[in-house]
Amino acid sequence: MLTATAGIFGFGLAGAGLQQPPQKATYKLFDSKVPSPQYASMGQMEAALEEIRRDIGTDGEDIISIDPEDLHAHGYSEWSSTNPDGLPVAVAYPRSTDQVSTIARICHKYRIPIIPYSGGSSLEGNFSAPYGGISVDFAYMDQIVQFNKDDMDIVVQPSIGWQDLNEQLAKMESGLFFPIDPGPSAKIGGMVGTNCSGTNAVKYGTMKDWVINLTVVLADATLKLAVVPEDLSVAVVTFPSIRDAASAAAEVMQTGVPVAAMEIMDEVQMKVVNLGGATAPRVWKEVPTLFFKFSGTKASVQEHISLVQRITKGHKGSNFEFAKDQREQKLLWSARKESLWSMLALRKDGEEVWSTDVAVPFSRLADIIEVSKKEMDDLGLFASILGHIGDGNFHESIIYNRKKKDEREKVEVCVKNMVKRALEMEGTCTGEHSIGWGKKESLLWEVGPETLAVMSAIKQALDPRWIMNPGKIMDLP
Amino acid sequence: MLTATAGIFGFGLAGAGLQQPPQKATYKLFDSKVPSPQYASMGQMEAALEEIRRDIGTDGEDIISIDPEDLHAHGYSEWSSTNPDGLPVAVAYPRSTDQVSTIARICHKYRIPIIPYSGGSSLEGNFSAPYGGISVDFAYMDQIVQFNKDDMDIVVQPSIGWQDLNEQLAKMESGLFFPIDPGPSAKIGGMVGTNCSGTNAVKYGTMKDWVINLTVVLADATLKLAVVPEDLSVAVVTFPSIRDAASAAAEVMQTGVPVAAMEIMDEVQMKVVNLGGATAPRVWKEVPTLFFKFSGTKASVQEHISLVQRITKGHKGSNFEFAKDQREQKLLWSARKESLWSMLALRKDGEEVWSTDVAVPFSRLADIIEVSKKEMDDLGLFASILGHIGDGNFHESIIYNRKKKDEREKVEVCVKNMVKRALEMEGTCTGEHSIGWGKKESLLWEVGPETLAVMSAIKQALDPRWIMNPGKIMDLP
Repeated sequence: MLTATAGIFGFGLAGAGLQQPPQKATYKLFDSKVPSPQYASMGQMEAALEEIRRDIGTDGEDIISIDPEDLHAHGYSEWSSTNPDGLPVAVAYPRSTDQVSTIARICHKYRIPIIPYSGGSSLEGNFSAPYGGISVDFAYMDQIVQFNKDDMDIVVQPSIGWQDLNEQLAKMESGLFFPIDPGPSAKIGGMVGTNCSGTNAVKYGTMKDWVINLTVVLADATLKLAVVPEDLSVAVVTFPSIRDAASAAAEVMQTGVPVAAMEIMDEVQMKVVNLGGATAPRVWKEVPTLFFKFSGTKASVQEHISLVQRITKGHKGSNFEFAKDQREQKLLWSARKESLWSMLALRKDGEEVWSTDVAVPFSRLADIIEVSKKEMDDLGLFASILGHIGDGNFHESIIYNRKKKDEREKVEVCVKNMVKRALEMEGTCTGEHSIGWGKKESLLWEVGPETLAVMSAIKQALDPRWIMNPGKIMDLP
Repeated sequence: MLTATAGIFGFGLAGAGLQQPPQKATYKLFDSKVPSPQYASMGQMEAALEEIRRDIGTDGEDIISIDPEDLHAHGYSEWSSTNPDGLPVAVAYPRSTDQVSTIARICHKYRIPIIPYSGGSSLEGNFSAPYGGISVDFAYMDQIVQFNKDDMDIVVQPSIGWQDLNEQLAKMESGLFFPIDPGPSAKIGGMVGTNCSGTNAVKYGTMKDWVINLTVVLADATLKLAVVPEDLSVAVVTFPSIRDAASAAAEVMQTGVPVAAMEIMDEVQMKVVNLGGATAPRVWKEVPTLFFKFSGTKASVQEHISLVQRITKGHKGSNFEFAKDQREQKLLWSARKESLWSMLALRKDGEEVWSTDVAVPFSRLADIIEVSKKEMDDLGLFASILGHIGDGNFHESIIYNRKKKDEREKVEVCVKNMVKRALEMEGTCTGEHSIGWGKKESLLWEVGPETLAVMSAIKQALDPRWIMNPGKIMDLP
């Protein structure tokens, strides 16, 4: 639920067609009795861009781009499960909170959709521009504004990446780090918008647990920081089946072992790691595998390792082994984190990757993973399962050719079935990728029309012209 | 911020004067341009009560009470910092979600304020009835609805107490517990409404981290559960000054020692514990003291204890000692938890306790506690400081006579100064007691009129007749 609602206030603003102007949006999810919002006409759109250039006090060359390649890069994503038609009509590159306010004020005046853009790594069309509008790219707002070491918090701009942030904290020898770790290219702004998690979620929770404060136009975010643990260890255990691996993971959680991270990969994903070569010369067994990260004081790390060894053995786990040094730890973990990129690298001409996630209660993890993997394998496509299983969350990634209608439809059915199965098990339609454009129907299945109407009422109270990233999460009721 | 917003959707419904009918509410915090809501007339109110009795299908004897003592008990609290004039005109005792829906539907139809009531232990007038209306007491809805051991979650009704819940989980030998521990009499419904914390917040976070789902009329709440830790230890350290104690606490947090709880008590509060006699025959030193709870595996508990010993020594901590057995651990902790009751027991005729809380970043803890204690001591009243210091949160409790105008005004100024000081230090006006009726002005100071207007817009979208606990957190803009 929070995954979805975080986005309401959040990150994601859309566009009003200079090139392909769909000025009259046709929102219709439920029977609509209120008139649809009308967005700016072509002429108004041009006037607005002029006004932004003038009010920001430059000739606008750096602030506003209407370069077609730029528009495409900001409205289409090759790793998104779905991409609506339509592109933004302009991309704005503000340098300050003031400039963001100016853009928002003028977009409000002219009724122009605004869509925020930070890392661009989201998977559900979160930054797409189905109704045109202005994409606001925060690329130039990537600084640390204020670091309060003693308070263990930090004020940052939205386009700082979580990895950059951690590198800077390490350079300052602060002993602190920001523990939320989604895809390597993700940035703070989008991480707020999707309430993302990552491998460390088992120990540290998700984005919502680490944001103290937001400036409303989302130029700054005050984040909490965690103390770097004294000791770290990474271990790997293999299993004869994905069900055994998932059952072992569930028992680790139910026993309350405070692992720092716990990831599942099926045999296909292990093959992808080997093919990617990131951990060469080491070659991993291509069987279902759990990855564990342990962190804390030295004694507690040892204790947690013994507990996990005992539990996994009870689920036919074998080959319990450790990354032998810090370098291997890092490589191993980065192999896991780059798995989507590794999959993308395996595509042949014309192929795409459909990557999506769900989450279920611990008691149903083994069931859903086993059934979903079987259905996915039956497609006869290259497909893998991996996930932040300590959070009840797992991802399916399928390589397919969107232009082959038959293939596309089969993949769509497979993904929808996975979502429906998760909901039947009292799970959620997305663990960490948020709703975006791609999972609006799934959200309706999950929460029902009444709750969606409540969410809509909240959005409308805050965004009466419905210009903040329209077309995402929910449509105008 | 979350402390405040949790209440918007939440718990807290108010009353429309059968006895003292203030039917036209005069909401005015800002210059009002919208007409104030109008609540039901006397006649409409009576009709509504009749309709509730009829639709719920009983003669209403058990469902609706208009007994004056009952109305007083549901509209006035002796431990609340402030109590507005006005009482509910009736108290409803629903037995099911359906009955709650019926009451809400009829109150909506007649524009009657509704105020929820569960444990009644809140401190900021949270369940008061400034505009009359119906108090909905969930006393008969105190059951566990469904326990999912393997998923580590539980569905409960709003009037189950957190202590009862834990006793039932212990009886079932589930190995699980619910870790949020506010005042002993608090119940789940109100705990959601105030987003409460408690001594375990350092390790387990606050209420918002443990609620998975709410039925919208708030009849059920699905809660997460935690695994009972293997080992537990409680320790006490004394300090020459409150500043030394607060500095030591801040360093424990900054070092990242994962203590399970860390509480501060000043010399006055230690005296209250001794006077209360709960830990007799043990008598505690009446000096500033930190209480620590350690939990986890045996080895990690030992490690954390050594770390804390080393840190507290560096801040002039001495007399580091442990509760010698489980009984003493429990007594010691319960002495801490019953401190408000112990204070109340010390009142003389006509006296009341003003108990309120703020929270600040770690780096300012020692400053604010030292200055606030000095100002409070200068009042010449019996006053103490204690708090969940691991959460940056502390409480002032002052015994005073409300009828002595001079005394009351001095206490008010002292409390307001503490809030203003916390805000200057980038803290928050309430750590865990929520805004309720008592801290509306403080919330305005903290977030400013724009943010309050946004919160109001959200409330109004969900509660257009402004009948859900009106007069709390914010007024109609």
